[in-house]
Amino acid sequence: MLAFGARRYGDGVLAVEFRNPQDAGSEGAEIVAIVGCGLIGQAWATVFLRAGAQVNLFDSVDGAAARAAEEIEKRLAELHDFGLASKGSTGKGAGSLHVSPTLEDAVAEADYIQENGPEDLAIKTALTQEIAYHAPSTAPIGSSTSGLRASLYAETVKGRERCLVVHPINPPHLVPLVEVVPSKWTSQHVVENVTELLEAVEQVPIALAKEIDGFVVNRLQGALLKEAFRLLDNGIATSDAIDKAISRGLGMRWSLMGPFETIHLNAPGGVADYVQRFGPMYKNMFAGEQQDSDWQTVVDAGLEADLTEKCPLTDITGAQKERDTALMQLLASRKQA
Amino acid sequence: MLAFGARRYGDGVLAVEFRNPQDAGSEGAEIVAIVGCGLIGQAWATVFLRAGAQVNLFDSVDGAAARAAEEIEKRLAELHDFGLASKGSTGKGAGSLHVSPTLEDAVAEADYIQENGPEDLAIKTALTQEIAYHAPSTAPIGSSTSGLRASLYAETVKGRERCLVVHPINPPHLVPLVEVVPSKWTSQHVVENVTELLEAVEQVPIALAKEIDGFVVNRLQGALLKEAFRLLDNGIATSDAIDKAISRGLGMRWSLMGPFETIHLNAPGGVADYVQRFGPMYKNMFAGEQQDSDWQTVVDAGLEADLTEKCPLTDITGAQKERDTALMQLLASRKQA
Repeated sequence: MLAFGARRYGDGVLAVEFRNPQDAGSEGAEIVAIVGCGLIGQAWATVFLRAGAQVNLFDSVDGAAARAAEEIEKRLAELHDFGLASKGSTGKGAGSLHVSPTLEDAVAEADYIQENGPEDLAIKTALTQEIAYHAPSTAPIGSSTSGLRASLYAETVKGRERCLVVHPINPPHLVPLVEVVPSKWTSQHVVENVTELLEAVEQVPIALAKEIDGFVVNRLQGALLKEAFRLLDNGIATSDAIDKAISRGLGMRWSLMGPFETIHLNAPGGVADYVQRFGPMYKNMFAGEQQDSDWQTVVDAGLEADLTEKCPLTDITGAQKERDTALMQLLASRKQA
Repeated sequence: MLAFGARRYGDGVLAVEFRNPQDAGSEGAEIVAIVGCGLIGQAWATVFLRAGAQVNLFDSVDGAAARAAEEIEKRLAELHDFGLASKGSTGKGAGSLHVSPTLEDAVAEADYIQENGPEDLAIKTALTQEIAYHAPSTAPIGSSTSGLRASLYAETVKGRERCLVVHPINPPHLVPLVEVVPSKWTSQHVVENVTELLEAVEQVPIALAKEIDGFVVNRLQGALLKEAFRLLDNGIATSDAIDKAISRGLGMRWSLMGPFETIHLNAPGGVADYVQRFGPMYKNMFAGEQQDSDWQTVVDAGLEADLTEKCPLTDITGAQKERDTALMQLLASRKQA
């Protein structure tokens, strides 16, 4: 079981570190406040409980936090049944779950706050201000928002340097990728510490260098959806066929490796070879659209170096075999299920 | 084990049907010719052998087909080890594998030909003409091409109504999705029969209504790659972060369900609700780009009907639970592996 400890830096920013439970001393478990207890809040609570934190739940709707607590217990039990509870945690989690009667109660002693309020700028601004007013000044405030940059809602917040987007993929206790998106005011310490916290609770954080609408995940999803809607609209294939193209096709590979890694393994000479062979095909496919990045330039500017560092050209055949083994494991586990 | 039988229609087009091996009579196993024995040809041969066909290999490079045969035997043995060989087939396949000394020998008695030649229009045109000259006039000729429409290379081919693109995802013996793309000359019988053949050998065919550059799979992949290159080029995230956004994020869900199914489960009111909630966010994300299909129009024109037929709104909560169970199975199988 992982636990995480906090210590204060001179600049008043929280730093989160790996810490063994036995080292926790008198401080006990870290305290995470979950503000907003819908599906995403419930899944976030499951993530932190699984790792042994004290989780405080608050929802402005009467009774919602208590109902969420029941759902969270069920999720933890399911994880336990599948052997996915963390080492050392029980079916009900080694952490503790508290239903807070007020926002103040939930966040007053929190080391970290995950806010899951509605996607409404005015509401999110007010809610973040209220959290910041009651929470320790050192506690980072992460928002699950998929649509609102922190610079839109955090400008007037007390200690806006600790506000940032911490955007999960639904459901975060089962899909580990989390986007960490700082605003221009967010402290680099906060970004690093939230990233470490997420790693400590077994998520896979990626920190974006700067804000952009849709972040990375929804821009990738949106680009694919845009094309899917267009293919359907143009009568090229049925929605069922388009879904299968992903679920029985591309998605199987993409569950093992990302888009760059995928093309690196799909030409004998790696990504540079792939872009040389297929770049013109893709360019032609989207001719007439907005001018885009030149793929060859991106390859030369560092993508090839990144990918060949991970997988040298001499290892491509071996990596293809590993991919195929992983695909066979995937197919075999589905056959059993 | 599945076998497939052929019978002739009045219009001279091959019809392929499911047939039990015991019904095969004196005809024996179906004969599939693999022309071009690189990685894709090898994987195709594995697909057909797994289902009990007689597979003839031909490659214009001396010795290539014989070397491919060794690789194919290894693939079949691996499938057997993972419990993925078809029921009734042995580790080495119940079918038979033949290395043909000439193209004529490979295709002369073939019921179906899968051509995996180079992505060069002149070469593919000549190769398809040669196949058509030697093959039975009833045998469909499918090409693995990802970049060339059949209408580009098949116009001058004898019996061009039996030429079509049969585009796999690499490697087809492990990723079942296959695109079946007719040219304007391709007979509808041929499309249906090749689709049935692919289903009989445990692939997942999707038939496109008409030709389009990149077909469905590479248009979806290309749209995502275009955005991935742009994000990298604009310094938003590293290539590693972008890869993880898929492999540890979206790709996990997409290995279970397609993009439309995914969004149908990501709003309480299904796809129409999702498009109403998030459509503006996506539109804003790609503002300034080419005018696209209006998502709401596509939803109203049939997408909502398609998806609610598969998964009524009252079943969404249940379907979310099924998705989560499948994700837990995926995570658990990876933990074991």
